Amino acid sequence: MKIARFSTEGDPRYGIVDGDDLVVLSGDPMFSGFDTTGERVALDGVKLLAPVIPRSKVVCVGLNYRDSAPVESADSDSAGSPKAEEGDEADVTAAPDGGPATPLLFLKPNTAIVGPGDTIQIPPVEGRVVHEGELAIVIGRVAKQVKAADYADYVFGYTIANDVSARDVMFSDGQWARAKGYDTFCPIGPVIETELDISALEIQTYVDGEPRRNGNTRDMIHSIPEIIAFASDVWTLLPGDIILTGTPAGLGGFVDGQTIDITIEGIGTLSNPARNRG
Amino acid sequence: MKIARFSTEGDPRYGIVDGDDLVVLSGDPMFSGFDTTGERVALDGVKLLAPVIPRSKVVCVGLNYRDSAPVESADSDSAGSPKAEEGDEADVTAAPDGGPATPLLFLKPNTAIVGPGDTIQIPPVEGRVVHEGELAIVIGRVAKQVKAADYADYVFGYTIANDVSARDVMFSDGQWARAKGYDTFCPIGPVIETELDISALEIQTYVDGEPRRNGNTRDMIHSIPEIIAFASDVWTLLPGDIILTGTPAGLGGFVDGQTIDITIEGIGTLSNPARNRG
Repeated sequence: MKIARFSTEGDPRYGIVDGDDLVVLSGDPMFSGFDTTGERVALDGVKLLAPVIPRSKVVCVGLNYRDSAPVESADSDSAGSPKAEEGDEADVTAAPDGGPATPLLFLKPNTAIVGPGDTIQIPPVEGRVVHEGELAIVIGRVAKQVKAADYADYVFGYTIANDVSARDVMFSDGQWARAKGYDTFCPIGPVIETELDISALEIQTYVDGEPRRNGNTRDMIHSIPEIIAFASDVWTLLPGDIILTGTPAGLGGFVDGQTIDITIEGIGTLSNPARNRG
Repeated sequence: MKIARFSTEGDPRYGIVDGDDLVVLSGDPMFSGFDTTGERVALDGVKLLAPVIPRSKVVCVGLNYRDSAPVESADSDSAGSPKAEEGDEADVTAAPDGGPATPLLFLKPNTAIVGPGDTIQIPPVEGRVVHEGELAIVIGRVAKQVKAADYADYVFGYTIANDVSARDVMFSDGQWARAKGYDTFCPIGPVIETELDISALEIQTYVDGEPRRNGNTRDMIHSIPEIIAFASDVWTLLPGDIILTGTPAGLGGFVDGQTIDITIEGIGTLSNPARNRG
């Protein structure tokens, strides 16, 4: 089942995708279940919004993909993909030496969240701003010291996230909160899929239609059950919290005027244009 | 004016401290002003709570104090203050070489917040857990790209925070989100002071009554106006967000059974016992 958050007029509402329509729900399904209002609206007549605004945490997992699949499209002649940066790119996003022993957690603020179609605003920072297409877990129940085997009880569903990052700021600050926390640096959507086999999903990112980073969830170093067990031992996860599970390796820069599409099998495509911030 | 959040029975409420009483407010003063209900309750008959639970961000500033005031009480014979760790301590909490050129921002999750008197739960991590007593700004209005000169328009008030940190995890992760993000790792309170000259306030931390870290806000590297301008350029600050402004240098370890008191002139004392987590 695909759940969308949308607006027509007035406050955001939730709906279940049913063909070309949304079956409108009476509340927030993460808190009040799936009661329907009886109303249907056409999908092409609404604006889809970020499917959730976390009340507490946008948790991210760094260095979580084995670099097992070199990106064939990462040619040095491609626009926006300077070869000189390939090594440094791999150092940050792919996991060397098998990756960290435990999931490397960091946080983005909920003010970074935007929805499908919303503009990523590139701030005036040194260096490149890059996309990181990721499978995101949406938490459905209060989760505290959850056992890995029980992880599914705490998952509301899955969506797509773009962990937008200002690369030079990651290095100059050392801490990644600012580099990854600017307003609009966490597009999510377009929907939450509540039934998804996450064992081997293709994740493909495109910039203006050209394939860039590519990977498959089977190459995650720390699995989703393991991530939920680990993160919920550190901090209580609340309904609506999301966990970005890491990005596959590959080149990631984009600039003003380009559009970044991230496709994950079974969920759909998250598409966002980018513009320099005024 | 000192504002407290408290419970007697039922939902948390806000009140203004008036001598030994609280003048009860009808709502959340960060959102609905200072309308009073006419009710008064005795301070010694209520439980004080964390004065705010941020809806969005607990922003922290790292390495923000000049190490101008060696801690005289940091004697190697003091319990819990091994001399061998002094160098490594200074590397992390004090700013060498004048500190970073811009405020070094990081985030704690709102699930780390606890109130005065609440227990800091020490998780089973490698290495020491340390206190970091800090002046915290409470944001009162939506703040986006604020000019430093206008900072006061966006400040609701100030409180005391303890930026509790698992030191070895800071080093092993590199990122500080987990080391500083465990549940209970952000005690705040006891109240919010809305009128405070923050130019030269003593910050004194005690462990079981023994003085430890000590400093004065006059030794901040990045001032509060500068921090608000910088942070609000990165991310939109929302009412109820808090900004921890950094800790003075000094030794900081504590263990199961100890109590950490942080006193800031003009606000009061934040006191929390620590226990190993079950």
